[in-house]
Amino acid sequence: MEKLPPGKLRVIPLGGVGEIGKNMYAYHVLDQILVVDCGLKFPDEDMFGVDVVIPDVRYLVENKEAVQAVVLTHGHEDHIGALGYVMPQLPGVPVYGPRLALGLAKGRLAERRVLDQMILREFVSDDVIQVGHFTIEPIQVSHSIPDSFALAIRTPAGNVIHTGDFKFDQTPVDGRLFDVAKLARISEEGILALVSDTTNVERPGFVPSERIVGQTFERIFREADGRVIIASFASQIHRMQMAVDSSVKLGRKVATIGRSMSQNFEMAQSLGYLTAPDSVRIRADDIGQIKPKDLCILTTGSQGEPLAGLSRMASDEHRQVRIHEGDTVILSASPIPGNEDAVWRVVNRLIARGANVIYDALAPVHVSGHGNQEELKLVLNIVNPQYVIPVHGEHRMLSLYARIAADMGWLKDDIFQLEIGDVLELDATRGKVVDRVPSGAVLVDGSGTAGIHEVVLRDRQHLAEDGFVVVVAALSAETGELISGPEILSRGFVYLDQNAELIAAATAYVKELLTSLPGSGPRATDTLQSDIRQSLKKFLEKRTNRRPLILPLVMEL
Amino acid sequence: MEKLPPGKLRVIPLGGVGEIGKNMYAYHVLDQILVVDCGLKFPDEDMFGVDVVIPDVRYLVENKEAVQAVVLTHGHEDHIGALGYVMPQLPGVPVYGPRLALGLAKGRLAERRVLDQMILREFVSDDVIQVGHFTIEPIQVSHSIPDSFALAIRTPAGNVIHTGDFKFDQTPVDGRLFDVAKLARISEEGILALVSDTTNVERPGFVPSERIVGQTFERIFREADGRVIIASFASQIHRMQMAVDSSVKLGRKVATIGRSMSQNFEMAQSLGYLTAPDSVRIRADDIGQIKPKDLCILTTGSQGEPLAGLSRMASDEHRQVRIHEGDTVILSASPIPGNEDAVWRVVNRLIARGANVIYDALAPVHVSGHGNQEELKLVLNIVNPQYVIPVHGEHRMLSLYARIAADMGWLKDDIFQLEIGDVLELDATRGKVVDRVPSGAVLVDGSGTAGIHEVVLRDRQHLAEDGFVVVVAALSAETGELISGPEILSRGFVYLDQNAELIAAATAYVKELLTSLPGSGPRATDTLQSDIRQSLKKFLEKRTNRRPLILPLVMEL
Repeated sequence: MEKLPPGKLRVIPLGGVGEIGKNMYAYHVLDQILVVDCGLKFPDEDMFGVDVVIPDVRYLVENKEAVQAVVLTHGHEDHIGALGYVMPQLPGVPVYGPRLALGLAKGRLAERRVLDQMILREFVSDDVIQVGHFTIEPIQVSHSIPDSFALAIRTPAGNVIHTGDFKFDQTPVDGRLFDVAKLARISEEGILALVSDTTNVERPGFVPSERIVGQTFERIFREADGRVIIASFASQIHRMQMAVDSSVKLGRKVATIGRSMSQNFEMAQSLGYLTAPDSVRIRADDIGQIKPKDLCILTTGSQGEPLAGLSRMASDEHRQVRIHEGDTVILSASPIPGNEDAVWRVVNRLIARGANVIYDALAPVHVSGHGNQEELKLVLNIVNPQYVIPVHGEHRMLSLYARIAADMGWLKDDIFQLEIGDVLELDATRGKVVDRVPSGAVLVDGSGTAGIHEVVLRDRQHLAEDGFVVVVAALSAETGELISGPEILSRGFVYLDQNAELIAAATAYVKELLTSLPGSGPRATDTLQSDIRQSLKKFLEKRTNRRPLILPLVMEL
Repeated sequence: MEKLPPGKLRVIPLGGVGEIGKNMYAYHVLDQILVVDCGLKFPDEDMFGVDVVIPDVRYLVENKEAVQAVVLTHGHEDHIGALGYVMPQLPGVPVYGPRLALGLAKGRLAERRVLDQMILREFVSDDVIQVGHFTIEPIQVSHSIPDSFALAIRTPAGNVIHTGDFKFDQTPVDGRLFDVAKLARISEEGILALVSDTTNVERPGFVPSERIVGQTFERIFREADGRVIIASFASQIHRMQMAVDSSVKLGRKVATIGRSMSQNFEMAQSLGYLTAPDSVRIRADDIGQIKPKDLCILTTGSQGEPLAGLSRMASDEHRQVRIHEGDTVILSASPIPGNEDAVWRVVNRLIARGANVIYDALAPVHVSGHGNQEELKLVLNIVNPQYVIPVHGEHRMLSLYARIAADMGWLKDDIFQLEIGDVLELDATRGKVVDRVPSGAVLVDGSGTAGIHEVVLRDRQHLAEDGFVVVVAALSAETGELISGPEILSRGFVYLDQNAELIAAATAYVKELLTSLPGSGPRATDTLQSDIRQSLKKFLEKRTNRRPLILPLVMEL
């Protein structure tokens, strides 16, 4: 590990810039590294068979002796979801986090059977965390999940404010306000760099309070003659609280559907983040015992995930809940980009089954957890940093934030739109990207193996588009004569029952190739296979205008 | 063809209900059918290898003697894009359409080499079209493309108003207003059924005028120091006009990128829908000759289509346009649901190349062509029909429109949320879905063949998720002894270079199967293959947690 001079600070995003998701940021001073957040991201639509995407942490693994700690800002998956994959590669490194974030992480870590390898340390808002040369003071912020924090990070090279995700909610569900006083007090000491959320920079003004959702819930609970089913993220403890509050007030019982929803309900309750009288909750199996008018069901599946509660209800495949006329379904979430299709498909199906579905466009049943443009400006002005580093956004958000910061008076040279892996070096006089570290995305699937190789992904994309054709033939090793075949196997290319003629013609074509090539006698199998591939490719493309993946296998007997 | 009694009208949507796209509606009176529109739809994200989706028209083909005509409301792809696939199956049936719609259709029909089979008949707003028992009067409406019409359809069973796509634009780009007087006059005669657009029913109020986009263009043209590149649909003649107007006013030259953009520019110009002095247009090859400040480039690719102009520019693969600092790119379109990912990927890339990209959220560079809720209500009140049939929407739009109509006083029994293929029968006393006809979606790919079979699509989905494994072995036909193999071929499953051990183990496992099965001697190949598939599936799933498509091939020699 290179030891930096005392006045220098390096900021290295390992995720979270140029994308929304897999937040992970490394800070490097002297010979020590501090990591903030360790999140995952959902796959793009062309990442076939991929379940989650996590940051490539080779840089940390190669310098693992230098890594002092990972500090979590809050408990959302895009900030904690990669812990189970990453931390086993960084043995002995402690993870600091707010109680709720650690509570949410523990469930997942236990599932992956890595919980016992973890060193988890809880912090509360008054704590000062000292790890190596870094002194970290959490600053309470408001967001869509309780127990969210910005971090003031004091280093030998200067102070950093890392905002995490935030909004200015003046009437937060749990009454815990953004601690602006603390942010201002620390900022007055002088801040070298602000690393700021930019998610909602495209939206003008201020984002509404989370509380407005609770008011909508209450109105809907009052008006609905039947069951009310609320779909949201399982980590949405505020929404759970508001659903419980309305249920208590209006005499409904609450059931939870989906393992993560049920687990988080109980965890949040036991940690004190969710207040629910025991009498309000019923088991999902007892839903049938309660009158529809007296029921509230909390379910997963707000992103249209095919295996989650809401999708199963929409397809009439849910064991405990069958949707019918009289049901009111609240979609208390907005689709993550890329999920729109899946979400609206589920909504349309629910409506087709007779449910009254209430979503964003129809009533305020969801608000964003991220501050809008004026909130971002407010923080920038309070912190008044020397250098500005927009994160937690795609290029278009980072770029717009940079333009706004420039309009507000920061010099263009002091605003940094970073790429993943950029090594930004800051000191009292200037900032510059001086290097790049190995970094990027690791694609993880249900197999739990390390990652999906890009070759495999490319093949899947090819197969998805045009399918495959395998052609098998057995030749005499001595004479090169055709003994058996060729036989053609194919899937995903053409419908075989309707294309027997095409397959027969292709088979005859390959047979012709194998028997008539000049210079009969044994030939190198590789050359032969390559010839078959090339010729068959042309043959099929001409006939069908498609380009299936072609794999010849010549067996020598 | 069943002959209906004189007082009965049947309405049969063949597309366009429960979806946005492939609009096609059949009206049946006595023994005659009239068809309105013949559109296509873009594929869902899991329709691998599919280029376009068109209506299944078996019902029309089976009753082709009864089909009097196809009448087009306007020139958008979701209303005319299936003509080239459908009309060759309905020989002799004339297509009536507004001049611009026919102009746009002709290009595509010529490409598919079916133009000479078509009977195309132009109509203008004062025409009365008489086909069989149907009398059709077009009613001019405003929309995002010029030459758009609602249709008043008089039948022996009563009158229908079919709105097509519309908005109330009080300052339309071409000055042609919604002919409310004609709509009102015909409506006063009494309307049996209103078949209404519902696309924007979720949005309150009125949609802004298309003209506002032109004002934004002009401001951007003035402020931009470099080139202005505008991406929109090639059918967006109004946008072309506004770009040309601002260019003429501010001294820029206009180049078009993309074959469809260039073709439509010329076609619209020659038909009188686009006014552009000859001096304003330059060839794309001459872009380099003009100072950036004096250039406006119109390009395709506003939906992130990988092969279109804008995507190529974003990936720096465009022959004539390389994006650099100083370029302003206007995304004058909003992503069609499902295209969001692709669109934002292109936008982010353009920004990363230094372009200033202006899109919907940043300035009014796009407005919808469909009226909002108040506009839909206004038409419903003017027409005051006996029966209400919401179309051109997903279930959630149809359902919301139905609720609004009920709030406005229509009886629930007089409002019909139809599914594709429903046969709604109306007469003076009641309406009822009395039947269903064969219908649905036909998936078309670049091969130009009739359609992609669902078996092929399912295989592609399986292949995309987990790839395939082919296992080949040669056995003696006499003894059942293993002569050669087994050999395993695989793609899209695991990365072979890193999984040699797994493949070797799987090969050994199958070999064991082939040599050790009880009752040695020749066995039925089918049974053997099925056994191998079952066992290997379990073996691989246990080892990798993946379920590739497995195809065994046992050759008997």
